[in-house]
Amino acid sequence: MFINASSLQIARTRTPKPITPNGELVFGESMTDHMLVVEWTSSKGWDSPKITPYQNFSLDPATGVLQYGFHAFEGMKVFKDEKGKIRLFRPEKNMERMNKSCARMSLPSFDEESVVELLKKFVKLEERFIPSERGFSLYVRPNMIGTQQSLSVGPPNSALLYVIAFPVRPFPTRAMHLEAVEHALRTSPGGAASKKHSPNLAPVVAPAGLQQTLFLFSDIEPVAGKIVQYINEAGTMDLFCTMNIFFALKTKAGQKELVTAPTGSIILEGLMRLCVLELARERLQPQGWCVSERKYTIEELAEAAHEQRVLEVFGTSTAAVIVPIKSIGHTGGLIKCGPRENEEMGPVGRQMRGWIESIQYGDENHPWSVEV
Amino acid sequence: MFINASSLQIARTRTPKPITPNGELVFGESMTDHMLVVEWTSSKGWDSPKITPYQNFSLDPATGVLQYGFHAFEGMKVFKDEKGKIRLFRPEKNMERMNKSCARMSLPSFDEESVVELLKKFVKLEERFIPSERGFSLYVRPNMIGTQQSLSVGPPNSALLYVIAFPVRPFPTRAMHLEAVEHALRTSPGGAASKKHSPNLAPVVAPAGLQQTLFLFSDIEPVAGKIVQYINEAGTMDLFCTMNIFFALKTKAGQKELVTAPTGSIILEGLMRLCVLELARERLQPQGWCVSERKYTIEELAEAAHEQRVLEVFGTSTAAVIVPIKSIGHTGGLIKCGPRENEEMGPVGRQMRGWIESIQYGDENHPWSVEV
Repeated sequence: MFINASSLQIARTRTPKPITPNGELVFGESMTDHMLVVEWTSSKGWDSPKITPYQNFSLDPATGVLQYGFHAFEGMKVFKDEKGKIRLFRPEKNMERMNKSCARMSLPSFDEESVVELLKKFVKLEERFIPSERGFSLYVRPNMIGTQQSLSVGPPNSALLYVIAFPVRPFPTRAMHLEAVEHALRTSPGGAASKKHSPNLAPVVAPAGLQQTLFLFSDIEPVAGKIVQYINEAGTMDLFCTMNIFFALKTKAGQKELVTAPTGSIILEGLMRLCVLELARERLQPQGWCVSERKYTIEELAEAAHEQRVLEVFGTSTAAVIVPIKSIGHTGGLIKCGPRENEEMGPVGRQMRGWIESIQYGDENHPWSVEV
Repeated sequence: MFINASSLQIARTRTPKPITPNGELVFGESMTDHMLVVEWTSSKGWDSPKITPYQNFSLDPATGVLQYGFHAFEGMKVFKDEKGKIRLFRPEKNMERMNKSCARMSLPSFDEESVVELLKKFVKLEERFIPSERGFSLYVRPNMIGTQQSLSVGPPNSALLYVIAFPVRPFPTRAMHLEAVEHALRTSPGGAASKKHSPNLAPVVAPAGLQQTLFLFSDIEPVAGKIVQYINEAGTMDLFCTMNIFFALKTKAGQKELVTAPTGSIILEGLMRLCVLELARERLQPQGWCVSERKYTIEELAEAAHEQRVLEVFGTSTAAVIVPIKSIGHTGGLIKCGPRENEEMGPVGRQMRGWIESIQYGDENHPWSVEV
């Protein structure tokens, strides 16, 4: 699994691309000049890493990733602070999760520290593509594909780790409506939805259509023994991502509670979910909030909304940070989720977004922000 | 969705490959000389089909199939009969299923008759690679990949349908042991396991390891209201495939019954499963068999085995046709599945295999076999 970061070879492009003006950026379409590639074979392990001009791959039609979905990916953002310094945000967490995804997909593991080192060198080389304007960032996509050239189903004997990047604009903070669905799931218990893996995306597009979806999971409530619908996570086509979901509530006893579903095989282990939980425990708990990772049903939400106990609801994702949810449609009717008529985001979401962004852009000196 | 099969352009290879001797064939490794490709864009629909020399694709690192799993595939076999005629086996069924898979993955639909026409022209051109020896065949892999060059998650605006092929040897008929698992599933209700889609394969490799797996699904038994473990299907690394599972039993009342699980979102809609059901209804039912598509639990199987009512168990797949199962390990112990000590396959499996092969190789004149 060792990757020798110090053996990095860099071949610079001879045709540098023009910089797309911030106002014209479209998600996923203005790639930077270069890409980082590291080849792996079962016989020799990881080859020397290379940075090359961004270019097409030449892939045999029988290649593993084209046949059987041997694939894992990550999404992370890189920021330029006020002094022009480049900052990664918890890159070790992305690499840790990517290694877990790779293990689940029978792809090779890699040493995470070396890849963080390589990411730093890559984004430094692409520095001119990182926007300086607040809210903008460089989206970095590490990807691993199985490259074995056989139609046998089995662990790949060769793979390619590669990293590409493009600048992105901030996501809108317009409050969103979600439609709850129980007929379509990304996967099931024992499945691989907690992993960043291509197959978890494509099957979501058709059932979700172009709307925003809240995924429910029917299961037996262990105490009463009846079937309930647990709220899992959300899939959103507008924002191109899966989101974890947080509910800010008052309990029947009047306690303020911030709730999100526990992770497991059916819920993405979102990095932004982790950040919100950690910040909430550090900064909201002292203000009297109870922070809970627990199963939460759509029936409970509907009841809380009916009793005016829903303060606000928001989704979390790397791409959008905090996405306010204004309402959820389900078979029982429309659940209103809290923000007042004239505001798009409630105070908890606003505070979280502020805290996270001030760490990302280096306003606050914090160990999560890693200077290049 | 229209594809103009008559506009097919053929570019023949200038470097024909040597034919691999039958005895040296390894599954998925000896590709034929050519491939069939048809490009699609959302603006222009399907382009003219082409047969070109087998060659690498040039794919942008941001291509949809490499990022989000926009992919669907089929597996089918082509046979040479005693007179040297080429025979496809129910190709319209593969194309029908592939169209369903594509719809689930937001990939474009295609007219099935045209692609069957193109498949005929393709296998005719590759005739010299189709082995004449009984039991051998040409394995044909139609594949569709999303080729959009963007990291936005949304329906692909371009795609590539392509077909590659390689000769295969018969699969061994050695009776197999399966280990029942409940901790790993290919997907869940609402998921996409019924579809031939890459993501359904890669996540299976790690939990299954190199053993043969019987996938169970825990659910509530509607009458008694208790949780039971339904038998879904099997995944096998040795044979590189997902199999449907059939149980030949005697009921408590002494009735002979052939049972398999009903399809739905959690079970592959196997073509060989369909063939076995249709042949059983036509040829076994008149012999006093009851043919059932119904949910079947591991507890029922264990009880039937204990009471000596299990006659035989077999899996079905395009690659292997009939795979005899000798035993199933699960938390309750070892379930013996019927074949006598000195035989690998029971009489029902042997008969089915014989009927299917005699249709495939044209011994029996039957509408399922399509002459080229």
